[in-house]
Amino acid sequence: MPDSTDSFHDGAPTATSVTPLLSVRRGAEAVDFYRTAFDAQEISRFTDGNGDVVAQLSIGAAVFIVADEAPDYDQFSPEALGGTTVRIELTVSDPDAVFERAVSAGGREIFPVEDQSWGVRQGRLVDPYGHHWLVSRPL
Amino acid sequence: MPDSTDSFHDGAPTATSVTPLLSVRRGAEAVDFYRTAFDAQEISRFTDGNGDVVAQLSIGAAVFIVADEAPDYDQFSPEALGGTTVRIELTVSDPDAVFERAVSAGGREIFPVEDQSWGVRQGRLVDPYGHHWLVSRPL
Repeated sequence: MPDSTDSFHDGAPTATSVTPLLSVRRGAEAVDFYRTAFDAQEISRFTDGNGDVVAQLSIGAAVFIVADEAPDYDQFSPEALGGTTVRIELTVSDPDAVFERAVSAGGREIFPVEDQSWGVRQGRLVDPYGHHWLVSRPL
Repeated sequence: MPDSTDSFHDGAPTATSVTPLLSVRRGAEAVDFYRTAFDAQEISRFTDGNGDVVAQLSIGAAVFIVADEAPDYDQFSPEALGGTTVRIELTVSDPDAVFERAVSAGGREIFPVEDQSWGVRQGRLVDPYGHHWLVSRPL
């Protein structure tokens, strides 16, 4: 079954990965926010005729995707549902600096970066599009 | 700013990563589902006095976290909100086999695994806890 060493029928093995796709309203604006807040790099961006975007972003080697919501396809933004069903843990070397930058860019602090009893230095913020981020470093 | 080569003040650099934390109802049951459906390995599990779990799982080298919902802390399950705000793209060598296994375990097909115009062989399913998975391989 799937693991990093699988091979498949027609070529080299594919590395197994789990990548979150964040549904948002105002997708193009959200991409700008993530670039500023987390120093994310834009790997690719597709924009359709309505201006809706699907953008692949990276923070260091870590990849995530931002896409405009499409409720007809069961793709809801946190603004549409009034909350979020998946939090994103962003592990970095310097969570204090990353958190401060994200809040300066428009994130709202839920709890500040502190050494937590569960073994990480971590803070939590919600971004302007309603997604929740745990900014962490293992202790 | 954060990248894989950052160093920090008191030790070795921390690799940057983005890890989704899936909020669910019936967390212990959900962990069993993900183990069966995706052949996930359980890295760690914390269970509190109410039976609520936080479990770190891996599929190959790819990590995700499953946790019982906690609405008082803005952690909602898809069942609570009637949808999900983040899809999870699971990239594997053999999406057909992984998808078939997940559906056999109780996932519901949204669209079958096929070569897609956006450059991946991909199917989409919703799991019994309301999270949506794109099971993919690059073409």
